[in-house]
Amino acid sequence: MTDLFLAHCRELIGADHVLTEDADVSPYLSDWRGRYMGRARAVLRPADPQQVAGLVQLCAAHRVPVVPQGGRTGLVIGSVPDESGRAVVLSLRRLNRIRAVDGINRTMTVDAGCILHDIQQAAGAAGMLFPLSLAAEGSCTIGGNLATNAGGTGVLRYGNTRELCLGLEVVTAQGELWNGLRGLRKDNTGYDLRDLYIGAEGTLGVITGAVLKLFPQPKAGITALVALGSCRDALALLKLAQETAGPTLTGYELMSDVCLRLVGKHFPNLPQPFPQTHPQYALLELSSHESEQHAVRLLEETIENALEAGLAQDAVVATSIAQSRALWAIREHIPLAQAADGKNIKHDISVPISRIADFVEKTDALLARAWPGVQVVCFGHLGDGNLHYNIAPPAGTPHEAFLAYQGDVNRIVHDSVADFAGSISAEHGIGALKRDELPRYKAQVELDLMRAIKAALDPLGIMNPGKIL
Amino acid sequence: MTDLFLAHCRELIGADHVLTEDADVSPYLSDWRGRYMGRARAVLRPADPQQVAGLVQLCAAHRVPVVPQGGRTGLVIGSVPDESGRAVVLSLRRLNRIRAVDGINRTMTVDAGCILHDIQQAAGAAGMLFPLSLAAEGSCTIGGNLATNAGGTGVLRYGNTRELCLGLEVVTAQGELWNGLRGLRKDNTGYDLRDLYIGAEGTLGVITGAVLKLFPQPKAGITALVALGSCRDALALLKLAQETAGPTLTGYELMSDVCLRLVGKHFPNLPQPFPQTHPQYALLELSSHESEQHAVRLLEETIENALEAGLAQDAVVATSIAQSRALWAIREHIPLAQAADGKNIKHDISVPISRIADFVEKTDALLARAWPGVQVVCFGHLGDGNLHYNIAPPAGTPHEAFLAYQGDVNRIVHDSVADFAGSISAEHGIGALKRDELPRYKAQVELDLMRAIKAALDPLGIMNPGKIL
Repeated sequence: MTDLFLAHCRELIGADHVLTEDADVSPYLSDWRGRYMGRARAVLRPADPQQVAGLVQLCAAHRVPVVPQGGRTGLVIGSVPDESGRAVVLSLRRLNRIRAVDGINRTMTVDAGCILHDIQQAAGAAGMLFPLSLAAEGSCTIGGNLATNAGGTGVLRYGNTRELCLGLEVVTAQGELWNGLRGLRKDNTGYDLRDLYIGAEGTLGVITGAVLKLFPQPKAGITALVALGSCRDALALLKLAQETAGPTLTGYELMSDVCLRLVGKHFPNLPQPFPQTHPQYALLELSSHESEQHAVRLLEETIENALEAGLAQDAVVATSIAQSRALWAIREHIPLAQAADGKNIKHDISVPISRIADFVEKTDALLARAWPGVQVVCFGHLGDGNLHYNIAPPAGTPHEAFLAYQGDVNRIVHDSVADFAGSISAEHGIGALKRDELPRYKAQVELDLMRAIKAALDPLGIMNPGKIL
Repeated sequence: MTDLFLAHCRELIGADHVLTEDADVSPYLSDWRGRYMGRARAVLRPADPQQVAGLVQLCAAHRVPVVPQGGRTGLVIGSVPDESGRAVVLSLRRLNRIRAVDGINRTMTVDAGCILHDIQQAAGAAGMLFPLSLAAEGSCTIGGNLATNAGGTGVLRYGNTRELCLGLEVVTAQGELWNGLRGLRKDNTGYDLRDLYIGAEGTLGVITGAVLKLFPQPKAGITALVALGSCRDALALLKLAQETAGPTLTGYELMSDVCLRLVGKHFPNLPQPFPQTHPQYALLELSSHESEQHAVRLLEETIENALEAGLAQDAVVATSIAQSRALWAIREHIPLAQAADGKNIKHDISVPISRIADFVEKTDALLARAWPGVQVVCFGHLGDGNLHYNIAPPAGTPHEAFLAYQGDVNRIVHDSVADFAGSISAEHGIGALKRDELPRYKAQVELDLMRAIKAALDPLGIMNPGKIL
């Protein structure tokens, strides 16, 4: 019964770290966007991987579902329990040590509960770069980043979290501790378990530690905002920038005029970069390992070529760190401005980069036909083919009322994504939020393979049930 | 019975492509290094993925083991059947179409049986680069590269084959065709099946197609050979080169003086780069997206810094493509010179880059204690922590006689690799060759996870049996 299981938990990790009072438990139950609140039998706060293993063994023995949780900043209801109250939340936040930094191997070994920002800082203190960067970096944990294969603004040059990880430590669904903390660039000795746990959202086991890749710190970064006539021109500029700037191009973000106007409306103190409005804007970030002069030269070359080719309508180059921050602030304030404007229907989609303009044109038209005047707030990581394609109601329709169409809107957008051979979750994951949509967009054979793996590695079905599958 | 199964095969793919005569079959049975010859019930040569699926369905129904085969250039006896004669060889060589090239998305979709060199050429013809490059590129297939997660000389900058693949098409062990040919930089919609099949050496299914990443073609490449006092100095130079040259450093190979002398002995027509001998040599390759001048400047800066720091004893910079080829030729002739010198005991190991010098020192000493005068022919991809650490007998001991100690030599080298947290197969895979060694170096929990996955995806055990597990 309940008491026996919790008594064992208390014995293992100390009574102070087994939370059962409502007031203590509730902060662990609600999803980041505040749309969902689950229930839990308890919150368990182990101190180290061995305690995690011991707790999962207890959960397996007592058939108690386990919901691993990091910073609880996920956007797909992946790290909070369902409403049954049967599950325990396994918080990894006390596993927060940076275990080792190796300057020659360019690796850092960390606990899963380390905050991303702390990892970035530790890399910087050692004269290196950990390039994962995203809005929640001040509170998300690396374990959560790994479990969801988080993306962010550095993917164009450095890849997703998956590409930034060399090795993992994992507690299996049986409560065994697997030490896969390898710091190797090459290792072909069997199945790639690392990449199976990465992105599995805690449904196959609990990530407790990782070996991360570090990179030489660039000597200078420089930012520009280029005004463009269309999404198609933004694609042409991306190609031109990659050819001109090569590997120094580290970021390429797209924002529509709708986005800039929203930011201007809700954050009037942020400077507006251009005197006139333009249909689209691309934010370019260049990083040089040589000098600031080098980055400036390549950026100027890129912009000159774009102006000559008739691609750019206007451009501003940040000439100071403050100006660069101001340009990025516009991009970063889009989700905040949207939230201030009222609830909207969000999508995190990707298509092949070459098809983005066609996707946007076609999907805009489909939505306008269904809801004349509908507002599309489209921005994101164009260099990765990843857009946040968010939908707000036509002027005059209350935001809350429009949410009733969420299912219909999702259907139109995601069907269109499928038509363009894209993904309905580019960087956020599936969680509970998109679980029911998955069977519509995945072939039966792929779902069968996923289910076979789930059944093989978690035969009791206790790991984060109700997520993904 | 035999006849019925083969009759079905003939019906499916045509009698001409079901080979059963000894003379037709035997070219498919021997391993690349000529140490092993298996037997097969037949060789099946399907024309397309649908035929592959149909054949695997037949094999599953008749419980016939399947050995997928590409260019048969693998080095660990992974693509040839065992001696039972029960298995069929499934040759992918007729699946050799380049299906599509997308210049904006920077992707190429290919059949698994495409020759690597043909893919490189097709990328070049489209003004782009497919950076996978290895000795067997003229005859290996991309399907084999994927199945073994091949490495090569471009890993430092571009990653292993795994990092160069966005999507896969696979025939499962049940003979179902999974279309995972996604050309997406970001896709977080469930378990990472792609990376599970990559590196699985055909033991979980048959790769029939892939979406590959392409890169902008560098405008210039430049090569230098730097003479060094020790392996430790080679490590310090690597760090210095990465800091000075940043992402333009695309190759960093190590060769010992023993290697250069072997090449000089067997290929006296190749120019020797230095008037004096030095303990170690590093081959540096820089690629610039800007200009040749840019690459030259960064290379000269690197070498000047290395000379000033007392790291480099001497250096030559190639000032023409012919000179660059001559420097690479030395590196590429090491395995050939070794073969000409007589059979030796090969290892394909990796350790964390920071520990390479310690590993070499310690392992050299262990071997010298066991076999005084033993020759270590050590070279490889130092930038990836991957060495080919090959052992030849002391002068006077016949090479063939020394092979009797192969098991003892492997034990010393691989135990030492394990002491340094390394891998006993960095880029070649496990195959049948290293299968029996795996349990010594993998934890039980990892082997159990691998076996659970194998049983889940290939419950009949028909996919390339006797390989890896």
